[in-house]
Amino acid sequence: MSRSSIQIHPMILCGGTGTRLWPASRESMPKQFARLVDAERSTFQATLARVSDASVFARPTVIASAEARFIVAEQRDQLGLAADILLEPQGRDSAAAVAVAALHAAAADPQAVVLILAADHVVPDTEAFVDAVRRAAAGAQAGYTMTLGIEPDRPATDYGYIRRGEPIAEAPGAARVARFVEKPDRAGAEALITDGALWNSGYFLFRADLMLAELEAFVPEVLAAARAALEAAVTDLDFVRLDAAAFAQAPKISIDYAVMERTARAGVLPVSFSWSDVGTWDAVWQVLDHDTEGNAVRGRVSLIGTKNSLVHSQGEGLTAVVGLEDVVVVSTPDAVLVASKAHSGQVKDLVNALRASGAPEADAHLRMYRPWGWYQRIDIGERFQVKRIQVVPGGRLSLQKHYHRAEHWVVVRGTAEVTIDDRVVLVHENEAVYLPIGSMHRLANPGKIPLELIEVQVGSYTGEDDIIRVEDIYGR
Amino acid sequence: MSRSSIQIHPMILCGGTGTRLWPASRESMPKQFARLVDAERSTFQATLARVSDASVFARPTVIASAEARFIVAEQRDQLGLAADILLEPQGRDSAAAVAVAALHAAAADPQAVVLILAADHVVPDTEAFVDAVRRAAAGAQAGYTMTLGIEPDRPATDYGYIRRGEPIAEAPGAARVARFVEKPDRAGAEALITDGALWNSGYFLFRADLMLAELEAFVPEVLAAARAALEAAVTDLDFVRLDAAAFAQAPKISIDYAVMERTARAGVLPVSFSWSDVGTWDAVWQVLDHDTEGNAVRGRVSLIGTKNSLVHSQGEGLTAVVGLEDVVVVSTPDAVLVASKAHSGQVKDLVNALRASGAPEADAHLRMYRPWGWYQRIDIGERFQVKRIQVVPGGRLSLQKHYHRAEHWVVVRGTAEVTIDDRVVLVHENEAVYLPIGSMHRLANPGKIPLELIEVQVGSYTGEDDIIRVEDIYGR
Repeated sequence: MSRSSIQIHPMILCGGTGTRLWPASRESMPKQFARLVDAERSTFQATLARVSDASVFARPTVIASAEARFIVAEQRDQLGLAADILLEPQGRDSAAAVAVAALHAAAADPQAVVLILAADHVVPDTEAFVDAVRRAAAGAQAGYTMTLGIEPDRPATDYGYIRRGEPIAEAPGAARVARFVEKPDRAGAEALITDGALWNSGYFLFRADLMLAELEAFVPEVLAAARAALEAAVTDLDFVRLDAAAFAQAPKISIDYAVMERTARAGVLPVSFSWSDVGTWDAVWQVLDHDTEGNAVRGRVSLIGTKNSLVHSQGEGLTAVVGLEDVVVVSTPDAVLVASKAHSGQVKDLVNALRASGAPEADAHLRMYRPWGWYQRIDIGERFQVKRIQVVPGGRLSLQKHYHRAEHWVVVRGTAEVTIDDRVVLVHENEAVYLPIGSMHRLANPGKIPLELIEVQVGSYTGEDDIIRVEDIYGR
Repeated sequence: MSRSSIQIHPMILCGGTGTRLWPASRESMPKQFARLVDAERSTFQATLARVSDASVFARPTVIASAEARFIVAEQRDQLGLAADILLEPQGRDSAAAVAVAALHAAAADPQAVVLILAADHVVPDTEAFVDAVRRAAAGAQAGYTMTLGIEPDRPATDYGYIRRGEPIAEAPGAARVARFVEKPDRAGAEALITDGALWNSGYFLFRADLMLAELEAFVPEVLAAARAALEAAVTDLDFVRLDAAAFAQAPKISIDYAVMERTARAGVLPVSFSWSDVGTWDAVWQVLDHDTEGNAVRGRVSLIGTKNSLVHSQGEGLTAVVGLEDVVVVSTPDAVLVASKAHSGQVKDLVNALRASGAPEADAHLRMYRPWGWYQRIDIGERFQVKRIQVVPGGRLSLQKHYHRAEHWVVVRGTAEVTIDDRVVLVHENEAVYLPIGSMHRLANPGKIPLELIEVQVGSYTGEDDIIRVEDIYGR
């Protein structure tokens, strides 16, 4: 069978919150969905596009958290690409996700070759990537669980390494894995590179039936839970929701520990394309284009005497840096990070400290995305709060009321359909409507362009938890 | 005559925009009026308070720019202290300001001893300051133009120095000035300190009649312009406005060049109290209290592995710094500065570059103070703008109209008196009012507490220059 005839089933894993890329990446919009590296599309979108060639790939499947479902669907639809979306009711680590992926692919074709991809990697050269995947797929089809091993270009201490063994005849260039090595120290990394070891990219290719057999052999509870969760799954709008009770039974274990380090049939294909998991701001700086001074800037930025730095200014604000080298400055409307590049991994500790202190900025962005659009607080005072709200065409908020606040809505773009108790009114640009305290109300965009309005809340309490939802088309 | 019987006439010069303390200090609220060092009061207020002991000082006079008049009056009134306010229609450098001060004091008493003070100095020990001023005043009364010379505690290169000559018999401890030395380089500063030279603080004490004679001798055009501007001055509300045409004739020259470096009667009193002109963020860091790591923080700040740094977070936002030393981070709602302390003087170049590029943040703050209160933009879009507006009790905006926008006002605190064409309505908390495009309108606060409202502007153009003012109680 020629290599080109193998159809590969891509399974994109979208977990993780990208804590070390705070404040751009937060739980409410993790790094794989944010537009950090490329202002035009997220790494999730780039990943989906990378496996969209129908002559090589079957229709991709995205495995995401239930919370991220509307972001995933919206970003998929922006690209105009097809993909199934499987929702994990909770994260159970990668072995459970791989089990779901293998079962899902096997349902279509037991011998399907599955490619597992993370949604947060940066690989600029799609052609080289696809070529490597096709070559690795030959090894997978021959019965190996293949990984792509990146040729190191520096003694990195934040990646795992793979030592190569005997060549695999069925996949030219590939070798059996002699050993997986955990993240080494600097000296260890140098020694590994001298010995020809490769970075573990986290890409896996395997035949579905063989992976299921390995899971059955090594972690049968994981496989059983995944199977039960998939069998009891329900289709909800555009999504396949795994059964929560069944999936909760899956032990939390990574696919590396569960299978890769125990199987006798692990293989690795060395690849030399440019690759990054953009795990830290330093790593983001590495993959971006630099000016002659080594700076990577975005947004309204002004620099004097500054070198080898990353400066991102989000929103309307201006960010200026004077007389510094090797720093990261990320300015968002509600939070600013300034870090030395060398210590950018410690941003994780920072976010943990912020969580412990109860700072809302640790996990929530100021602009909160919802299935109907987004809202953003623009001002807050003792007895009031002001929000800007955008509703997509056809979007419809829940029918709701508040016990502690009245609301004034001023439409600044588009047309709103507003339900107030038993009335329904159309409110146009430059018109306002008043929602008395306790009134039952609903906002919808019946038009063809986005609806934008300014909401002024007035009352003794303006928290998000004073929303009594009576009905919601998004099943929230 | 005993020292204590001399009454000293303080003249506080409020010029300057504090460009090197951007973004906290901008033309719309320069450093002397901002609360940078002490969150409770500005350096102008601290300066006014420092000369408020009526047993030593006559009623102070403040010389300020016409633009700053309402800030000066408001900050004076907050302290409950009396002070005359003389307005310069434009800055003509310090010789012209000193001429006005000398003429103003001489009108009350030709032999009045005048103390010239800058509004932006930090002097924590008022008692030591007042004691020094009284001792220097003895020299002034004896006919010397006295300065206070600060005993250097480091070889500073950003101050001028004074070499001492023969002692002045009438003022124990004081000496004639042998020579004024411009800002030296580091080696020069070290040599000056070895020779016993002092920092030039910029405080001057002189007898009004003698200063007028010196001005007449050295810069008669400056004195003539100042005299004409004062003679033609008009009293406007609470202010004495110098005549613009007359004052414009004053050559721009500093008092140092005009008189101090040419007079035969310059004297200096060495003083050792703590003093700073807080000219840079590094200097601000120096005068602030530090934690055990050497950090001076204000606002919502989180630090990891950070030392000897100044981190100010203004507004609601959070500012985090990871793994840096000797940096300045100043975060405001519309602009962020990150600088190495050692290069903080270059902030001036930064602001000049911002001005050249037309960035509004170079000179204007997001919150703009007006005689009736303040306004702040909280959001802006293609065809709308949202502002938060506060009106002090009794405040009254101009009667105005707009050609390109309608406005919705939602009162969130207090009561508004709103004039719309020929109607006058009271609008209470949680009520809204609509001002159609082209309508003649006026906002006032008839109540006893501040009025706050959210203004939503909708229209094709929302710039500040689409305000047609028909009537204004503040003479704008």
